[in-house]
Amino acid sequence: MSVHRFFNPRGVAVVGSMSEGKLGYELLRQIILGGYRGRLYVVNPKAQGALDVPAFSAIDNIEGELDLAVIASPAPTVAETLRACGRRGVQAAVVISSGFGEVGNHAGEEELKQVASQYGIRVIGPNCAGIVSTSCNLYATLEVRPPAGKMAFISQSGALGGAVLAWAEEQGVGISKFVSYGNRADLDELELLPYLAEDPETRVAALYIESVADGRRFMEVVREFCRRKPLVVIKSGRTASGQRAALSHTGSLAGADAVYDAALKSSGAIRVDTVEDMFDLCKGFVFLPPVTGKKVVIVTNSGGPGILAADRAESTGLEVKAPSPEARQRLAEVLPPFCALGNPVDLTVQGTEEHFRQTLETLLEEYDAALAINVATPYLDSVALARGVCDAAQHSRKPVTASFMAGTLVASSVAYLRQRGIPDFAVGERAVTVLAHMAAYEARRAVLQSVPEIPQPAGALPLNEQGEFLEPQAMSWLNAHGVPVPPFHFAGDEAAAVEGCRAVSYPAVMKVVSPQIIHKSEVGGVIVGISSDEEAREAFRRLETIGRGKQLRGVVVYPQLPKAQEVLLGCSRDPQFGPVVVLGMGGIYTEILKDISLRVAPVTREEALAMIRELKAYPILSGARGQSPCDLDALAETIVNFSRLPFLYPEIQEIDLNPVFLFQKGLLVADVRVIRGGS
Amino acid sequence: MSVHRFFNPRGVAVVGSMSEGKLGYELLRQIILGGYRGRLYVVNPKAQGALDVPAFSAIDNIEGELDLAVIASPAPTVAETLRACGRRGVQAAVVISSGFGEVGNHAGEEELKQVASQYGIRVIGPNCAGIVSTSCNLYATLEVRPPAGKMAFISQSGALGGAVLAWAEEQGVGISKFVSYGNRADLDELELLPYLAEDPETRVAALYIESVADGRRFMEVVREFCRRKPLVVIKSGRTASGQRAALSHTGSLAGADAVYDAALKSSGAIRVDTVEDMFDLCKGFVFLPPVTGKKVVIVTNSGGPGILAADRAESTGLEVKAPSPEARQRLAEVLPPFCALGNPVDLTVQGTEEHFRQTLETLLEEYDAALAINVATPYLDSVALARGVCDAAQHSRKPVTASFMAGTLVASSVAYLRQRGIPDFAVGERAVTVLAHMAAYEARRAVLQSVPEIPQPAGALPLNEQGEFLEPQAMSWLNAHGVPVPPFHFAGDEAAAVEGCRAVSYPAVMKVVSPQIIHKSEVGGVIVGISSDEEAREAFRRLETIGRGKQLRGVVVYPQLPKAQEVLLGCSRDPQFGPVVVLGMGGIYTEILKDISLRVAPVTREEALAMIRELKAYPILSGARGQSPCDLDALAETIVNFSRLPFLYPEIQEIDLNPVFLFQKGLLVADVRVIRGGS
Repeated sequence: MSVHRFFNPRGVAVVGSMSEGKLGYELLRQIILGGYRGRLYVVNPKAQGALDVPAFSAIDNIEGELDLAVIASPAPTVAETLRACGRRGVQAAVVISSGFGEVGNHAGEEELKQVASQYGIRVIGPNCAGIVSTSCNLYATLEVRPPAGKMAFISQSGALGGAVLAWAEEQGVGISKFVSYGNRADLDELELLPYLAEDPETRVAALYIESVADGRRFMEVVREFCRRKPLVVIKSGRTASGQRAALSHTGSLAGADAVYDAALKSSGAIRVDTVEDMFDLCKGFVFLPPVTGKKVVIVTNSGGPGILAADRAESTGLEVKAPSPEARQRLAEVLPPFCALGNPVDLTVQGTEEHFRQTLETLLEEYDAALAINVATPYLDSVALARGVCDAAQHSRKPVTASFMAGTLVASSVAYLRQRGIPDFAVGERAVTVLAHMAAYEARRAVLQSVPEIPQPAGALPLNEQGEFLEPQAMSWLNAHGVPVPPFHFAGDEAAAVEGCRAVSYPAVMKVVSPQIIHKSEVGGVIVGISSDEEAREAFRRLETIGRGKQLRGVVVYPQLPKAQEVLLGCSRDPQFGPVVVLGMGGIYTEILKDISLRVAPVTREEALAMIRELKAYPILSGARGQSPCDLDALAETIVNFSRLPFLYPEIQEIDLNPVFLFQKGLLVADVRVIRGGS
Repeated sequence: MSVHRFFNPRGVAVVGSMSEGKLGYELLRQIILGGYRGRLYVVNPKAQGALDVPAFSAIDNIEGELDLAVIASPAPTVAETLRACGRRGVQAAVVISSGFGEVGNHAGEEELKQVASQYGIRVIGPNCAGIVSTSCNLYATLEVRPPAGKMAFISQSGALGGAVLAWAEEQGVGISKFVSYGNRADLDELELLPYLAEDPETRVAALYIESVADGRRFMEVVREFCRRKPLVVIKSGRTASGQRAALSHTGSLAGADAVYDAALKSSGAIRVDTVEDMFDLCKGFVFLPPVTGKKVVIVTNSGGPGILAADRAESTGLEVKAPSPEARQRLAEVLPPFCALGNPVDLTVQGTEEHFRQTLETLLEEYDAALAINVATPYLDSVALARGVCDAAQHSRKPVTASFMAGTLVASSVAYLRQRGIPDFAVGERAVTVLAHMAAYEARRAVLQSVPEIPQPAGALPLNEQGEFLEPQAMSWLNAHGVPVPPFHFAGDEAAAVEGCRAVSYPAVMKVVSPQIIHKSEVGGVIVGISSDEEAREAFRRLETIGRGKQLRGVVVYPQLPKAQEVLLGCSRDPQFGPVVVLGMGGIYTEILKDISLRVAPVTREEALAMIRELKAYPILSGARGQSPCDLDALAETIVNFSRLPFLYPEIQEIDLNPVFLFQKGLLVADVRVIRGGS
């Protein structure tokens, strides 16, 4: 059954008590007030009707077109109602009723799932706030009925969903579809987003989540969606206390926030922190054409607010450059001499409708987007200024936002702007923030096309005779998979150790090899600067002493590497998203400053390069201030290869390559630690 | 003349054209509509009256009580009007008229200043949006007339001031005094803030500035104000483009933004970026009792918004801890079992008035502040919930904020909250941000008591025979002023150099000394690891070669210092604020990561310690992760002493101490560079 039926049912049955004030009755009332155009039925044991809608004692008894059951009856009755749906051929049910998993009634929720699967019924809920589909005037929810529009909203939190609907009404941002899926016994964003991607009524989707069930599938769905349309996401639980609350709220484990951040970014979604930001963005995406570049111009009739907006524009990554000499010349011909022709262009309080129109029209020829600020006074005709702004936007076909301030002074001009499709924001800072996100979305869309292929398992790790995976095994294995390591020799006795040192040539480094010694340096298990056979012998004997009684397997010998820039590479498994890869600067500074970049593995070459550029210390790697530049192509290639390892070898839990030495040409892993599953 | 007359005039003359629609006429109309209670007069050459107000051809002719002239006549007439004020004994004038410095008419503005000073008239403006004093119903402005209240607002931008008044009206935050001072020919925040500090009508002040004229005086005034009342500041020009715009807008040089940041912080002001944030904060300060600690509790009837608020609370530095076992026990007795008793406390959609009341009352016994979130649905009585929240706030006398969502659904409950003095915010995130700022303000107030004394000049720098201030002079001088340096010897010949090396003991370091060699290392002018007399002689001869033809004065010899943590100390002069002191981590990482902290000099010991703690790499200095802790007491003392040097020796333009070696006990400056005035 397609999700489509939920949003375009030919008939709807409301299941629940029809006594005034009861959930079922209120739902029915909402559906009628909303103007739903299909057939309506009510169902309850006494066949008690209401509001002139025909009543039945069971779904089975309903004749006529019926596609959707909206269930608001007590939890213990829901499974039987679903069975009746199954018998009647109703394949879509919204279960508003609570009293399932969220209060510990897992058996009840399981039964509900079983019945649904047995009869092929798709379920939204239980414990949800319902659905809205404005294209057929279906408001199957107790929440505010928003106007129809181009924004879809999916919410894991029912109450937040309701608040968003109320806001939508207030802000004049219409809704296409709304779904609160509550306990997600069945349908959730994984199926809703693909539907919305195709939905001609939906131009942008917003999503509020506290957790995801299957991180990989979530990323795929989001990426696929974002190739078509923008997705704005609020993921709560960013800080420690937020995570604790999300845990107790949903009973599900919230993954580490940094992983969510990386997953959303890689998939093309725009993550915001507040519902206000979410609305701002949706307003932009609904009303504006795409923002195809970063050059923005601010045209204002007041200096202060223009400066504040310019500050914000620059700090969000937009370019706030002065107009070209040609454009300034053209503006000078039409504007009074006291106007400031920079960016912002300050028309001063004497700026007219015509000034706004001509300035914006002229500048939009060379800018990608604009913000028009009007700080109104009681003696100024703000509607006329709005007309100038709207005309210019229409003429240029470029994205133009407005910030008309403030309050009742601009109420009619803001209404005028809205009517002509120009989004207005309470302050200019919010308008440029929206433009910045929109520009970033367009820039990312191209990158979303390249998806790394998930490698198939390659077999077991190459263990030693004792079934262990120690440093010599790990180093050979890394090298075989495109992660460069220095030449080395494993030696089981003193003579072989000396031989090894000679082979790698002096000065050499010797390390102890034992499954019981993980942190070699801490026990003196790493000896550097070995410069002769004699010193090599001495080193071996010292390591032998250290390894005594600790299942000593031998030593491994490397050449001493020249000084280099150090980074670290790590990989571990996130409970929601699986393998993730981390790049960080080496050393204590960056450990404390947390200068790392993280991605869900595997990564493409583009993503690996983005990870490198994301490091705060990137200028050091790229050769700033007299540093010699590192071989970042080699690093990117290594990250790509490294990020494939946990898929090739599923038994791997964690790998640390720390440090990795970056040279002007190439790189080498200087130490490795691998944790295998169950070990 | 006290500023008081501006805000409590017994009579006001409006000077300007009284034809309908003209500036003078509109001002008069505003003053009458506002209900000003004193005497009113109008003045223009034709003695044209309006709106039943008596008219005069000149100020001189007015009989009756008159304290304030509001001037809106053309720029060329303003000076003569001021003269008339002088003759008539009117000592306060608000000049709304534009056409002065802001359009390049600096002569006109100078004349205005001269006349004012000649007659002892205080002037607000010119080119300003006027003033408001709600205590006497005086609205001498064309802007929206806000209700009376406890927030004062001073704005360098007239238009922004107007927008703020419109917002104040919309948000129900009343205004006590409003001043737009425009070109600040005379009065500005330096005199207005001390007045507002005493003003019983004003509980919090907000200030919008683009630049300050005298940074030191500004800091003093702000500090003095913040000891008494909170001050919220928007300083525009944060980023490069913002600074460029501010420049063209005001014709004044905006100081480097980091210095403004430091100056405002040290003085106790709260800097925000947007007018929205400013209003949020003022709402909090006007309506709430002081926030005396960081422990905040969130009580909500909806999980999602509660989590989002908890996230924000934690990231703004509040503590979001779970209730004590005792409190949970007490709550468990009154709340249904499905409520989540963490933080947030989730009462669920079934939360009642009584639940909100009891939960908040119980928890406010152990928390410093609270946020109550209500996500309304059409079938919920939000006014009842508001009543529960207000009762608890009243009972506990602690700061309680609310976020009732959303739109028309909560209009009447938000009005109820406002009426009972509980500030409501569109989203919970904004409410907790306000609580965080308020808590920080209270914490800083104590520190504002200790002000560093500005040292008196101590005379000239101790120069060498050639009148130069080279490394040996600078090192002795630092040492004499409590900035520790290693033992060293200056040597003019080879024998003295060897003697010096022996005296500091081997291994030694030798550096070339020449006024023409600033960057010694780059020309090989620093030789380290000198371990014998022979090497010392060789080193001297090499430095002699390097110094040939470059006014070689000799060499300076140090002991080679043990490995240590490196930091840097710098001092320079900001055009607005004068001497500033900078502490930074040494090395390329922190140069690129910009890990520095800055203060306006001189600094107290408390501020020096705060500078140290502000460094991102602070954990390294304090001994995290197995590092040995540095002597931060010694560093703080050195910063204090160092920050006094530019006052003791006014000829100093810049000093760089880089690196400074920090040891577990003590510290030593390893290199110094001083730039003197005019050099």
